[in-house]
Amino acid sequence: NPIKKTRKNKFRSPQKSYWLYGSHAVATALKSPLRRLERLLATPSALATLGTLPELCPKPELVEARALSSILPPGAVHQGIVVKTFPLSPVSLDQVLSAREAELSSPILILDQVTDPRNVGAILRSAAAFKATAIIMQERHAPEESGAMAKAASGALDLVPLVRVTNLSRTLKKLSSKGYWIVGLDHNGPISLNTAPINEPVALVLGGEGQGLRRLTRENCDVLAKIDIETSIGSLNVSTAASIALYELSRRR
Amino acid sequence: NPIKKTRKNKFRSPQKSYWLYGSHAVATALKSPLRRLERLLATPSALATLGTLPELCPKPELVEARALSSILPPGAVHQGIVVKTFPLSPVSLDQVLSAREAELSSPILILDQVTDPRNVGAILRSAAAFKATAIIMQERHAPEESGAMAKAASGALDLVPLVRVTNLSRTLKKLSSKGYWIVGLDHNGPISLNTAPINEPVALVLGGEGQGLRRLTRENCDVLAKIDIETSIGSLNVSTAASIALYELSRRR
Repeated sequence: NPIKKTRKNKFRSPQKSYWLYGSHAVATALKSPLRRLERLLATPSALATLGTLPELCPKPELVEARALSSILPPGAVHQGIVVKTFPLSPVSLDQVLSAREAELSSPILILDQVTDPRNVGAILRSAAAFKATAIIMQERHAPEESGAMAKAASGALDLVPLVRVTNLSRTLKKLSSKGYWIVGLDHNGPISLNTAPINEPVALVLGGEGQGLRRLTRENCDVLAKIDIETSIGSLNVSTAASIALYELSRRR
Repeated sequence: NPIKKTRKNKFRSPQKSYWLYGSHAVATALKSPLRRLERLLATPSALATLGTLPELCPKPELVEARALSSILPPGAVHQGIVVKTFPLSPVSLDQVLSAREAELSSPILILDQVTDPRNVGAILRSAAAFKATAIIMQERHAPEESGAMAKAASGALDLVPLVRVTNLSRTLKKLSSKGYWIVGLDHNGPISLNTAPINEPVALVLGGEGQGLRRLTRENCDVLAKIDIETSIGSLNVSTAASIALYELSRRR
């Protein structure tokens, strides 16, 4: 089975390093004790804004801005600074659940096949701002850690644990058994988010850009809530919907 | 004065056409009676998803996906379809104010030097979803209509009027005299958004990505409100903040 083989390789072999770019993303990565960094490339002016470098930081290599553009994907806005880094070590759901006992009121986010790395990055950024505990995605149908994700996250990739699980239904059942109230955001949901019954702690589930929540995911939710919008002329980006829901949960506390 | 000259040229001479891309953005542009289109290029499969074309549509030119990538800025996600279009005709504040008398409860958004076209596009998208009346920006320090803006707007560029004014302070004073309650979003604001006093109709003011609201803008606000977040570890993207505020206004109605 070639698909199975690919997955094994992807998640068991040591992952390759990648270029992480942008001033906020790089500054946070440099400070993170969890990061293994290979190289630091910067323009003189971008390097100056960093201030004192941490002890374990690679020796900075001074370059011109166009040299950075040439090593990054087209269109990447690097702001004069990039690091080559290995992806963060995997975090398990059990680690997250055992570490969070002190803050039972903060939500966990679950992404059901959100595939655009910039959307995942934007959700990470709002998750940090609203103090979410973690973001859970499937191993498959979810983007790998990348420069584009880190840039959209604006530092939050190093602040909010990103947990990858094999089976989302099983994860929802597990969270439910631990006392989580599973709230699915669904634009066809029967209840409006601002009046939906919410019990803490909340696991907030968001569907992919095109399809929304899958049937099995929906069936594992305690409540399906919609954000009231004018659907005839508009739709919400998934990262926008996530941020609004995080705001609503935080407003109610 | 060379700056003045550039501005004059930019806003008085007929604007040049540009490539607008992505399935939602193109489909909405094709339906818009306000659009002047020059060309329509698509892959066979992307064209098939459009269904019947409107009468005034340019004759479709079938191309391969990579031909589209080569005419667009690097990294543009075109989904197999692009149109060459002229920018929409300018809309004045007076036109917007006289047209909206029927719907006095819906807000107007004001962007104070939001410079990233993707942020403006994302704000347009949420503005359409929450039925905002219009978005007002300065002529200067604001991006021109572009493919990147239209893509992020996902069709909303053709649905929400984008008004450009010379002087934002004067515009805020005018809105105030017409009975608008001017709410500035400011992360140092003294009041939380969810408890801020709100009188309709609201003009919601958002500052640029780096600086936030300028002093003169702030002085013209009736209330300065903040979205409660954990500022030590997080910040909100300006389009996220706009969407949350639109949600909060809609929730209160």
